[in-house]
Amino acid sequence: MELKAPPFKLGDLASWAGARLHGDADLAIHAAAPLDAANQPCSISFLANSRFEKNLKNTGASAVVLAEAALEACPVAALVTQNPYATWAKIAGLFVSRRTIAPGIHPSAVVDPSAHIGPGCRVGPLVYIGPRTRLGTNVLVEASVVINEDVSVGDQCTIGPGAVLHYAVVIGRRVRIHAGAVIGANGFGLAFDADHWLNVPQLGSVRIGDDCEIGANTTVDRGALGDTVLGCDVRLDNLIQIGHNVRIGDHTAMAGCVGVAGSARIGQYVQVGGASGIGGHIQIADHVVINSMSQVTHSIHKAGTYSAGLPLSEHAAWLRNAARFRHLDELVDRVKSLQRRVGALERGDDPVKHAPDAEK
Amino acid sequence: MELKAPPFKLGDLASWAGARLHGDADLAIHAAAPLDAANQPCSISFLANSRFEKNLKNTGASAVVLAEAALEACPVAALVTQNPYATWAKIAGLFVSRRTIAPGIHPSAVVDPSAHIGPGCRVGPLVYIGPRTRLGTNVLVEASVVINEDVSVGDQCTIGPGAVLHYAVVIGRRVRIHAGAVIGANGFGLAFDADHWLNVPQLGSVRIGDDCEIGANTTVDRGALGDTVLGCDVRLDNLIQIGHNVRIGDHTAMAGCVGVAGSARIGQYVQVGGASGIGGHIQIADHVVINSMSQVTHSIHKAGTYSAGLPLSEHAAWLRNAARFRHLDELVDRVKSLQRRVGALERGDDPVKHAPDAEK
Amino acid sequence: MELKAPPFKLGDLASWAGARLHGDADLAIHAAAPLDAANQPCSISFLANSRFEKNLKNTGASAVVLAEAALEACPVAALVTQNPYATWAKIAGLFVSRRTIAPGIHPSAVVDPSAHIGPGCRVGPLVYIGPRTRLGTNVLVEASVVINEDVSVGDQCTIGPGAVLHYAVVIGRRVRIHAGAVIGANGFGLAFDADHWLNVPQLGSVRIGDDCEIGANTTVDRGALGDTVLGCDVRLDNLIQIGHNVRIGDHTAMAGCVGVAGSARIGQYVQVGGASGIGGHIQIADHVVINSMSQVTHSIHKAGTYSAGLPLSEHAAWLRNAARFRHLDELVDRVKSLQRRVGALERGDDPVKHAPDAEK
Repeated sequence: MELKAPPFKLGDLASWAGARLHGDADLAIHAAAPLDAANQPCSISFLANSRFEKNLKNTGASAVVLAEAALEACPVAALVTQNPYATWAKIAGLFVSRRTIAPGIHPSAVVDPSAHIGPGCRVGPLVYIGPRTRLGTNVLVEASVVINEDVSVGDQCTIGPGAVLHYAVVIGRRVRIHAGAVIGANGFGLAFDADHWLNVPQLGSVRIGDDCEIGANTTVDRGALGDTVLGCDVRLDNLIQIGHNVRIGDHTAMAGCVGVAGSARIGQYVQVGGASGIGGHIQIADHVVINSMSQVTHSIHKAGTYSAGLPLSEHAAWLRNAARFRHLDELVDRVKSLQRRVGALERGDDPVKHAPDAEK
Repeated sequence: MELKAPPFKLGDLASWAGARLHGDADLAIHAAAPLDAANQPCSISFLANSRFEKNLKNTGASAVVLAEAALEACPVAALVTQNPYATWAKIAGLFVSRRTIAPGIHPSAVVDPSAHIGPGCRVGPLVYIGPRTRLGTNVLVEASVVINEDVSVGDQCTIGPGAVLHYAVVIGRRVRIHAGAVIGANGFGLAFDADHWLNVPQLGSVRIGDDCEIGANTTVDRGALGDTVLGCDVRLDNLIQIGHNVRIGDHTAMAGCVGVAGSARIGQYVQVGGASGIGGHIQIADHVVINSMSQVTHSIHKAGTYSAGLPLSEHAAWLRNAARFRHLDELVDRVKSLQRRVGALERGDDPVKHAPDAEK
Repeated sequence: MELKAPPFKLGDLASWAGARLHGDADLAIHAAAPLDAANQPCSISFLANSRFEKNLKNTGASAVVLAEAALEACPVAALVTQNPYATWAKIAGLFVSRRTIAPGIHPSAVVDPSAHIGPGCRVGPLVYIGPRTRLGTNVLVEASVVINEDVSVGDQCTIGPGAVLHYAVVIGRRVRIHAGAVIGANGFGLAFDADHWLNVPQLGSVRIGDDCEIGANTTVDRGALGDTVLGCDVRLDNLIQIGHNVRIGDHTAMAGCVGVAGSARIGQYVQVGGASGIGGHIQIADHVVINSMSQVTHSIHKAGTYSAGLPLSEHAAWLRNAARFRHLDELVDRVKSLQRRVGALERGDDPVKHAPDAEK
């Protein structure tokens, strides 16, 4: 079955998405709405996280995608599935209403005659596409994108406004590169020569696998020797920095503002929380979860969840505790000394003389 | 009174800015200068923070905007006000000399015929403005900006070079969006489906209130369901990431490199220091101050100042203390054990046997 | 001697780079390759860090640039130098094969008639260059760059795609500005006026010395009064924020995602690790090294290496230790109290009464 444009019958949505219908199959669904929105008749919403179940009782939507466990509390029609968020991802796509750029090459775009633009591509206004670059089929290139020479972009990719693909970068199929992202700028290679820095030419490129996502204003540097490589289904949020020669395994996802230093090797199904930093040449095993704002200075060889940093406190309390941290090593020494002295007292030994400064 | 272009008479500046004149009303002021600059005759400067009062004595400026308390130490003419920095903000505007883009639409710009460009707008070179987009009056759009379809931009906004406004974004009046900022890219919505990620379509948009400022290369993502919303007079510095469905209250300001994860709700008059991170779905009350580089993992319900992280140390000391941190919980246990043992000794109980490892 | 294009004779490479040849001078070198790449006949690589010496034994390259100490372990031809990484920086430049933008001004570029474009410049497609701006000789301006009015760019600079140079910015010679960088956006100057923020006009500019490098999507704000100033040979990686009126000394290098707040003064030969933050008005002495993800809240007056933050732990252990940190100050008090009590026991004083909560 193919569903065209809203409205949809709720029963058709259920069949299309493989969900169990609970309610009126003929209910007409015109829109998608947040679960906690006020009266939104003829709209559909979802519940994927039990912490928001409190919003279900008063939902203004007419139908909700949810799991079996939440069905009883649902006051309206429901589509029941095992993974409501994944089902929602499919259904929400039916309500995208964006009227995008027309097929073909906009007359203001500058496309080198030696470039190959596949069938079904839409190349927007003021785009530059360089010599020998190849776009596959149905690629969407939004306004002001720059794609330099010798780049390869796979079928069905979308490149957001103002994004930059440097020369010789290779992009897989169905990759989504968001506005302002820069793929393939020179890596930060510096050699110190007596009293100044020399640039180390960056001879590699960037290869990005199928189904990846690169967030807005994120940067992925080209390799120094050999390439920077993202596997398939790698998901990068906004404002992330990926250094030269980093390798990221399939299905790994990173939240915004993460920095990954050069030559780090990150496994598959890794999740990195926002604003974390991963040091150079570090290795991270598959299925590792790194919480937000963590500093990773050593390799992680075992799957699991890891954290660093310190939680927020009221400033006055933080000041006192942070000052103590600077003397934590001495504190441990003082506790050790106390343990010895108490042991001596317990054994009835003669007390040892302690210098007064031991009690500061 | 209206002041045109420098030079200004000091007395006129005083009247115009509502300041008390202390000195020669006929003094001609040609320029603005830093307080600690060397000989800068005919220039005006300001002193707003008492920590810089040491620069006042030797100032090379001919007049200084300052508070009553600093007047006695001022060796030159003065404009006295209760809030010297705010007075300075007004006066400095008189010295802006930038000769900007001419009114009208530059011939190299690509403006869709269905777009509405209000009177007094200046649309720079190589700009793209999409279908049905509306600019109010006196909007400045600098070179290479991309404004996609169905966007609304209020009166007197300025959009810096290369900034991107995605489809259906709504911008209030007098908003200043700096170069390279991306408003309305897709939020980072991922649903895990058995062994891979699904994109969750982002159906909402971004609404930005009057008098906001969005820094260079800052990103504000569109909502998943419902919009990402900035109130009025929200001030974002450069390289900030605002996730989908975040709501930021009026008059809140954030310094550079902050990350705010999806669905966080931030109050009014909040100040967030540079490079701090605010977790998803967190709520922050009005008038909260978060110091720089703080990780916010729980909601803050009470106004006040908050900090996290740890201060810088010499590396060798830091190494020792950081190693101890990893055993802080054990240290507390050891102290508790000592408290019990000392209590027993004080009471004259028979000593308990301690395993040797208790004294490691 | 001048070397043109690969292949090169190994003996010629040695002479050109000032290295000692160890092996066949007639060996033809066609390419550069990573040390750990599999069979790469006719290619040259390098070993600069002894931790990678394990890759030397099985290298697939035909020749390796290395230091005397590594020569014995090298199974192939070698070029021996005192600083292999600096030698490599020179040699790698011989293998850059990028076929860049043609000399002259691309017909789609918009160059104001009052701008001066020096001989040998290459101005790419869809570039904007504003009134009175001056480019020196042999400047490369890639596609979609915006250079506003009254800018000065020195000889042999390269400006990456989509980068923005705001009005009146001054750039030295041989500066490399990468894609999406924004130089000279307004600094974040806000004055609080009773109940709202006022913009403080930013009247200064940005001056960048010779041989600097500015990474992709990095932002350098213009000064409020007086300029933001980078010395010579300053190296900034990607996604760095430099606030207004910051001054950075010659040869200082910063890794990605660093934030430097307004008016900080950073010395010469400083190295700042990734994602560190430097507070406003802070001074940092020459030759300071700040490790990654460090928060710098006080000035550093002495050369040396500094660190902050806390290392990664397994999440469960981190939770326990982080909770203890919030009571570190109390822990110190408890240890002090124990020291007093143990001292009293050792002296045979009468035990003091302790409230039960002292043993919590």
